[in-house]
Amino acid sequence: MIRKCSLVVVLLASSVMADEGMWTFEALPAKKMEAAYGFVPDAKWLERARLASLQFNGLCSASFVSPNGLMMTNHHCVEACVASLGQTKKTNFVEKPFMAKTGAAETVCPDTEVQQLLSTEDVTTRVQAATKGLAPEKFHDGLKAINNQLEKACVGADEATIACEVTSMYHGGQYLLFRFKRYTDIRMVFAPELAIASFGGDPDNFVFPRYNIDASFLRAYENGKPASTPVYFGFRTDGAKPGDEIFVTGHPGGTDRLLTVAQLEYQVRVTLPRRLEEFAYGRGMLHELSRSGARGKEVAELPLSGLENGIKVMRGERDALLEPRLLESKRKDEAALRQAIAKDPVLSKEIGDPWSEISATLAKDQVLRVRREAVAIRSELFMMGVTLVRAPAQRALPEGERFPEFSDRALPSLGRSLAAPTPFFPELEERAIAHGLSRMREVLGADDPLVKAVLGRRAPETIAKEAVKNSKLSDPKARKALWEGGQAAIDASKDPIIVLAKSLDAEQRRVRKLNEVEVQGPLSRASERVAKAYFAVHKNDTYPDATFTLRLSYGSVRGWVKADGSTVSPVTFGAGLFERETGEDPYKLPASWMAAKSKLDPTTPFNFVTDNDIVGGNSGSPMIDKDGRVVGLAFDGNRESIGGSYWFDEKVNRCVGVHSAAIIEALRVVYGMGALADELTKPL
Amino acid sequence: MIRKCSLVVVLLASSVMADEGMWTFEALPAKKMEAAYGFVPDAKWLERARLASLQFNGLCSASFVSPNGLMMTNHHCVEACVASLGQTKKTNFVEKPFMAKTGAAETVCPDTEVQQLLSTEDVTTRVQAATKGLAPEKFHDGLKAINNQLEKACVGADEATIACEVTSMYHGGQYLLFRFKRYTDIRMVFAPELAIASFGGDPDNFVFPRYNIDASFLRAYENGKPASTPVYFGFRTDGAKPGDEIFVTGHPGGTDRLLTVAQLEYQVRVTLPRRLEEFAYGRGMLHELSRSGARGKEVAELPLSGLENGIKVMRGERDALLEPRLLESKRKDEAALRQAIAKDPVLSKEIGDPWSEISATLAKDQVLRVRREAVAIRSELFMMGVTLVRAPAQRALPEGERFPEFSDRALPSLGRSLAAPTPFFPELEERAIAHGLSRMREVLGADDPLVKAVLGRRAPETIAKEAVKNSKLSDPKARKALWEGGQAAIDASKDPIIVLAKSLDAEQRRVRKLNEVEVQGPLSRASERVAKAYFAVHKNDTYPDATFTLRLSYGSVRGWVKADGSTVSPVTFGAGLFERETGEDPYKLPASWMAAKSKLDPTTPFNFVTDNDIVGGNSGSPMIDKDGRVVGLAFDGNRESIGGSYWFDEKVNRCVGVHSAAIIEALRVVYGMGALADELTKPL
Repeated sequence: MIRKCSLVVVLLASSVMADEGMWTFEALPAKKMEAAYGFVPDAKWLERARLASLQFNGLCSASFVSPNGLMMTNHHCVEACVASLGQTKKTNFVEKPFMAKTGAAETVCPDTEVQQLLSTEDVTTRVQAATKGLAPEKFHDGLKAINNQLEKACVGADEATIACEVTSMYHGGQYLLFRFKRYTDIRMVFAPELAIASFGGDPDNFVFPRYNIDASFLRAYENGKPASTPVYFGFRTDGAKPGDEIFVTGHPGGTDRLLTVAQLEYQVRVTLPRRLEEFAYGRGMLHELSRSGARGKEVAELPLSGLENGIKVMRGERDALLEPRLLESKRKDEAALRQAIAKDPVLSKEIGDPWSEISATLAKDQVLRVRREAVAIRSELFMMGVTLVRAPAQRALPEGERFPEFSDRALPSLGRSLAAPTPFFPELEERAIAHGLSRMREVLGADDPLVKAVLGRRAPETIAKEAVKNSKLSDPKARKALWEGGQAAIDASKDPIIVLAKSLDAEQRRVRKLNEVEVQGPLSRASERVAKAYFAVHKNDTYPDATFTLRLSYGSVRGWVKADGSTVSPVTFGAGLFERETGEDPYKLPASWMAAKSKLDPTTPFNFVTDNDIVGGNSGSPMIDKDGRVVGLAFDGNRESIGGSYWFDEKVNRCVGVHSAAIIEALRVVYGMGALADELTKPL
Repeated sequence: MIRKCSLVVVLLASSVMADEGMWTFEALPAKKMEAAYGFVPDAKWLERARLASLQFNGLCSASFVSPNGLMMTNHHCVEACVASLGQTKKTNFVEKPFMAKTGAAETVCPDTEVQQLLSTEDVTTRVQAATKGLAPEKFHDGLKAINNQLEKACVGADEATIACEVTSMYHGGQYLLFRFKRYTDIRMVFAPELAIASFGGDPDNFVFPRYNIDASFLRAYENGKPASTPVYFGFRTDGAKPGDEIFVTGHPGGTDRLLTVAQLEYQVRVTLPRRLEEFAYGRGMLHELSRSGARGKEVAELPLSGLENGIKVMRGERDALLEPRLLESKRKDEAALRQAIAKDPVLSKEIGDPWSEISATLAKDQVLRVRREAVAIRSELFMMGVTLVRAPAQRALPEGERFPEFSDRALPSLGRSLAAPTPFFPELEERAIAHGLSRMREVLGADDPLVKAVLGRRAPETIAKEAVKNSKLSDPKARKALWEGGQAAIDASKDPIIVLAKSLDAEQRRVRKLNEVEVQGPLSRASERVAKAYFAVHKNDTYPDATFTLRLSYGSVRGWVKADGSTVSPVTFGAGLFERETGEDPYKLPASWMAAKSKLDPTTPFNFVTDNDIVGGNSGSPMIDKDGRVVGLAFDGNRESIGGSYWFDEKVNRCVGVHSAAIIEALRVVYGMGALADELTKPL
């Protein structure tokens, strides 16, 4: 097994091996790439890749795939939009495809934003100067203040089209300021039925061999017209073949490869089990709800798939951490790193013992998180209530003292999103509130003063039912009025969600602050010094943990050998889709595919795997060849890739994508979307 | 904090401290008791306590409380009976009290057995001689064989009224043969409404201050008449006062105080999180089911309360293990024990290194349990199907090769219980089967050959629905026919539950055998040597982990100081019950109590806590004074007592009981059950 975060390996071989790494565009491992594939992207290649790669709505990746603003991402990245289009157009676009065959039919996805990275600036010196010497409990606020300041200056007056963000890389070892162009008029062009987008559902999630068309196409508009996007990735319809070199650009969301052993232990002992338990509860509830009939099924569908995906990821992470060789190797690496630092008195003094500080902070967190989790309520309606209740006081504060969601930069979009129509399922809101209040009583006890104050003599279920039934907050107009009405409107409001939010607000703010001061600040401060130590030893031969910032991964189309010794070949073909079809959910194909069966080429490549190093957030990433042509669309990893949160196990960690040939064939043969296919495949 | 499993403490003080310990009647810590309370039970006292104390249906404790077979246990120990009485008598005895005011009205609890311990024999030498030198993979079968042999000889020809059981104490350090008198005609006399029996429901479970009447009364019959039980505990209506010495006799079910550090780590990292996740899923499902209407509520009620209790216990255990001082102290103790052994070459050779063997076995289990858990289906109907499918082949085997549930000793009662009417909720069976099959597909993958064979082209939900709908196995007559029909009947059966059981049987037997040979055998063998090491150092100044065998705990009525510094006083009073009443479930009192409110004495002691060392299985235990008079009925521990699985923290670990005065007042004033109260309080 070849990996890189190991000091031992690095000291011996002084090199990153094979295809590991989510590299920043500024620090590619040129020698490694040259050695592996005889090709290193030049500045022009990288600029094109940067401008054609997009961050989609904060959580996914996307790319421009035509000069007219056409974008490609995963179907699972547009689920919320698909649901809302169904409400607008009175059609269930979960069960039916969304197909805009004309420009006029392209329909706005509400509350959707796409960002294109224009430039990156290293602001490490300025950030570290501003926070140097701050006491642990001041660190979090100090960091927030300098970031706000840098971001505001970067955006300048172009707030509508420019966004800026300081991101901590290497857990504070480096701070980068990213400047983006914002696209906020995003329209749906094509989304297939959920049944083919996530064929195999939860059982096949993170599984390969696989047969999905987890793809969708949208278009960025500017001034009411398709945006002009001269820099884009062309489509290569013959797609990728086994052994081909593949680049994946995108925004991997989070890895934990630089965590200390104490932090990894904390994940497996505390964080993951607690979250898994909470998710499992929700899954049981939603399964039962979807059993109750058509309405229940509709209400439960999307949150259930989110929970199930989360459960698979967390179980995979837990299993990776429980596999003894991972923690053993991390332990060895950490000991070697600490030893290396101890040998250098200057460095040793500067860095101190952040490892012990982290352990001590986690011990504190273990106590604090109990109450913090107990007073949380995961209802969207309730959270909007909380935002409205806090807004007047927050807006009156100097920016440095506000919560980040009320920063000058965030306020306009917060106002917009509150006033935008958001689809609510009252069934879900009611259950989330009842569950939150029940959990609060369960954890804190019926005798706790907060519990008594919030519940009074009523049961959690009663409060939740009445609050959701009688609240006006599902109406954007009501929210807008409260947002604009200031403190007086909030004080006067008898809306039961507002009343409930008020009853919990002080305690929720208190535990949040406590977390920032006692946990997050000290952790950031210590992690920064762990990162410094790591840097000092590993120099530039490394890449930062994923942070939703743009990265490049290189690799090739390649199967793997499973634990039981069997070999998985890297490409599936159309014929396999129909073999897997059973007629029962989640292996039931939509009518469109059953009708097209005889017209489809059974030898068309369908899905494929590569050894690119990707992770959640890369969903929707283009998979491109050396010439910058799309050969696939990343949508998943195999089960073995989930341990990628902590290390890259090159032998088995695989990225799963939809083959470009399958996308084109689906558009032309199944959906009659020839014009879209033509736009994608038009020669550059 | 005073505790005992610590070598360090023992070596220094060479004594068990304070009120810790679930002592066997044969090895009471006389000196300690004398020092603490100036009273040591003599042989006569102990004989009386032994004969008046009962094991109730395998999982609870009970006691004789009149010379006419009258028994007391918890309401939560008779939930299944209460539910079935409702079916017989067409009344919902969950919502209404069950009150037999005449002997004729006393109604049989189906499938209920009570056991009275007649004698105990130490068979360690014989068991260890029979298993000595067996290879690890043979150990489990060898142990089973010698136990079967001893038990059969002990029962002799009195199978109907005598039961015998060899139990491993100290994880194999000692083997005891217990001989019981069996009572199998058990009739319900009185059970209050669930709403007062478990007032406060899940939120108040493991909580104190508390207000419950978790009590029920039953009567043992012999030859159609109330059994004559001249040895019983009388009732003391003024009950216990703060500071009073209290004895609790009963059958604590399981503690893990002698586990190695590796086993404790395994619990917190593997066993507990996995089970908690599974329980949380079921809880979410049942919550939603009970939201669906009156029928859903009825179906979900009992399994939900079982799950919620389990969740509280496991969370408490997890929290105890995550509290650093527990594992730190266990680590220190284990190191000291191993050091002490290492100094003795003879002992050292005999004992070897069971600690490492246990670690290696757990590593194996971590791999094996994945498939083992994946092929399990927790439906009662399905499990009956499995029993029926296996029975012909099992019955044809020599006894030593059978599964324990098919041993000569177990066969008659297995046949009886299959032919007895068992209440089924098809809703629950269907969900359990669907969930089991879904989990199997989720964990093993849709491409696994077993999954393909069992599911074919059908969805888990479809199979479950059809199986439960079309199976005849809920009819005891159908089960009896298959039980008696032998292999031919099973082979011919097209009952969908039988068909499903057949499709999983081979794999379920394989993973079960694998577990016995690769995990349980090696663990038993190693644990026995850890116990030997422990014995060699701690000699007789110790007690075995709880094993559902009869134990005595001594202590006193005593509050405690909580983590936040507040003091909890040890007794609650009637007035508090009505203060806690909110009119909403689970703080809603039944009509009978609301009606009686003005007639009840607000100063009657209601519930109370003592520092007796008890654990699950002690439910229903009598709490008695020095004179053997009932002053309370144990039904719970405080939240802090849950860590009692691993150690006894005398400062905070408390047993919660119903005060005898509250029971008598409830019977007389609320329920008009004066005759029953008279029977209880009749002078000895």
